[in-house]
Amino acid sequence: MFLSPEGRAAGEAVLGWMREAGMRAALDPMGNAVGRYEGVRTGLPCLMLGSHLDTVRDAGRYDGMLGVISAIECIDVLHKKKEKLPFAIEVIGFGDEEGVRFGTTLLGSRAIAGTLDPEVLQAKDSGGTSIAQALLQFGLNPQHLSRVRRKKSDVLAYAELHIEQGPVLEAEGLPVGVVTAINGFSRLRVTLRGEAGHAGTVPMSLRRDALAAAAECILMVERAAKELPDLVATVGRIEAKPGAINVIPGEVQFTVDLRAPEDSAREDAVAEVKREIARTAAQRKLEARIESLQDFGSSACAPWLMRQLERAVEARGVRVRRLPSGAGHDGMAIKAIADIAMLFVRCKGGVSHNPAESITEGDAATGAAVLFDFIHDFKPLSA
Amino acid sequence: MFLSPEGRAAGEAVLGWMREAGMRAALDPMGNAVGRYEGVRTGLPCLMLGSHLDTVRDAGRYDGMLGVISAIECIDVLHKKKEKLPFAIEVIGFGDEEGVRFGTTLLGSRAIAGTLDPEVLQAKDSGGTSIAQALLQFGLNPQHLSRVRRKKSDVLAYAELHIEQGPVLEAEGLPVGVVTAINGFSRLRVTLRGEAGHAGTVPMSLRRDALAAAAECILMVERAAKELPDLVATVGRIEAKPGAINVIPGEVQFTVDLRAPEDSAREDAVAEVKREIARTAAQRKLEARIESLQDFGSSACAPWLMRQLERAVEARGVRVRRLPSGAGHDGMAIKAIADIAMLFVRCKGGVSHNPAESITEGDAATGAAVLFDFIHDFKPLSA
Repeated sequence: MFLSPEGRAAGEAVLGWMREAGMRAALDPMGNAVGRYEGVRTGLPCLMLGSHLDTVRDAGRYDGMLGVISAIECIDVLHKKKEKLPFAIEVIGFGDEEGVRFGTTLLGSRAIAGTLDPEVLQAKDSGGTSIAQALLQFGLNPQHLSRVRRKKSDVLAYAELHIEQGPVLEAEGLPVGVVTAINGFSRLRVTLRGEAGHAGTVPMSLRRDALAAAAECILMVERAAKELPDLVATVGRIEAKPGAINVIPGEVQFTVDLRAPEDSAREDAVAEVKREIARTAAQRKLEARIESLQDFGSSACAPWLMRQLERAVEARGVRVRRLPSGAGHDGMAIKAIADIAMLFVRCKGGVSHNPAESITEGDAATGAAVLFDFIHDFKPLSA
Repeated sequence: MFLSPEGRAAGEAVLGWMREAGMRAALDPMGNAVGRYEGVRTGLPCLMLGSHLDTVRDAGRYDGMLGVISAIECIDVLHKKKEKLPFAIEVIGFGDEEGVRFGTTLLGSRAIAGTLDPEVLQAKDSGGTSIAQALLQFGLNPQHLSRVRRKKSDVLAYAELHIEQGPVLEAEGLPVGVVTAINGFSRLRVTLRGEAGHAGTVPMSLRRDALAAAAECILMVERAAKELPDLVATVGRIEAKPGAINVIPGEVQFTVDLRAPEDSAREDAVAEVKREIARTAAQRKLEARIESLQDFGSSACAPWLMRQLERAVEARGVRVRRLPSGAGHDGMAIKAIADIAMLFVRCKGGVSHNPAESITEGDAATGAAVLFDFIHDFKPLSA
């Protein structure tokens, strides 16, 4: 979790590995682990690589981490050969991609892209600690947020290796695939207010039960997603207050996460979900408040980068498979300052965000080898 | 909350008021505040009065407390008149009736009735503290549980004044009413296990979403209760794990509280709810575990005590209204050692377990006056 003791241990391990691989490495003021490997001259624009160091609760081992470690391994090979390239390379272990702690995602990559509104630092975790306070407690200075930002002219491109987190590559017997676009997503926080009351004395007909209304909304969200191809929707968090076995819930809060490859399909679905929640609340005489937490449009990968990645894939004797990403990634933020590309590595059963997340050593090696060739032969667009 | 700093403050205030009213008063080893006013001789069997000192989260001011304070006020009147009765009187402020902290109710009154299995002391609160540990931390000795128990021969009867927590007396314009029986209740804890997964990558058709299944169960419980007259059912608590905005819930736990005046109707409804939960889980390829937390049969009030209460009501010029109690009360436990009676005081809009809970000073005075007459003129069954 972002800015946790475990997050610190992960960041320090990564900084150590970066230094062993010949990089200058430090935490930036947003808690990103940043390593830099200079090119043939000091201070050249960089090819940015990376992925995230945080993960969800009860997660697997590879989501995020694999991309950071694979990138460091590639630099280590260059370093051992004392090879310098005509550009610098930076590897970034983003401190927060998942948004588990503060309910708002891509904190690390948005800071680097310069699109993180300083207002967001006031967002609080469930214990009431704001991002700004947590940064201070971690020994970082939230006043220095602007120093994290990179200029477009300093970044030639961004490339990320990540596990697929889906079933496509496994179904086709391929170790890696090239991402075409990252699906857009919308996130809502819904609060339903009814009336708390005694579970034994309020007749069913007089109840304004916020949890029963939420249950109706959850099934409606599921139904709406099932009706539309390629669209997925999830209610991942729910809290019912006061939360006693013998009290009718007076208030319920839940989240909705909705994703689609087509922005217009996602926007239509969000509008429908909002309408239906309002209708359910009105029917049950409840108040509904719906907050839009985040809306990210679909993020296309750059064709010129995809072609270079595809050449590296072919060079390893692997058939090129293009596929979209159902999950969100740091590239969604980084594309504000650089063109992006992603290489997916096959994962078992498409399972992720789960301790059963699994990859093979062979696939990890193929992924790292493709990434190495991509880095080694990288040609900036202007070249 | 039971065994909390606030619980200690409430207990100490009550013990102080008991002593001011001429009673010997102390906490018993289960955390009940017990005051005793001797009769014409020391050591006579007692008329037991009381209600509970704990309440739910975000509750009102009168649930429980009113009965304890009214009883102490009655003793204070006797004490000021230096009047001793041909029996002792005990007033008990039960430490736990609601069961909010440990999920199991009537801890105080079950200990006094001798029906609290010492096993129950291993039940844990959400922080992992057991009842036994909490008692020790509070300065009480859980080994002394058996000392709390009262013998049948020591208790002539039990009478409790309580707010109605329902709309009947208000609708009929009556300040007080005489309870005929306390509705039985059944409580279940349901755990649904599906599979956690990434909210962006697992297609809707492959999901085993525990929260969507729970939503179906919650609506089924509501529907089942609406179909049967006099039956009420409530899902008051729910927890979805891992509880992240971008993760499909892999496990959900929720409670069901089901009440009815007829034991057979309640038992039939519980069986139907269990069947339907199992069916929903099977249909969605989830595992379901259903635990019965508590089953209390309907508790009839004793006709001989009701008659004495009714005489006291009539003496104040109030028409006698008999009514059942939808809520559970300590009498459900105490009836194991004594016949029970209850006097209800009108409450505004039937609202309880809610900060809006409200009564009038006049109704409180009428309630206390009826209780005083009942105590003063009390004739044990054997007399």
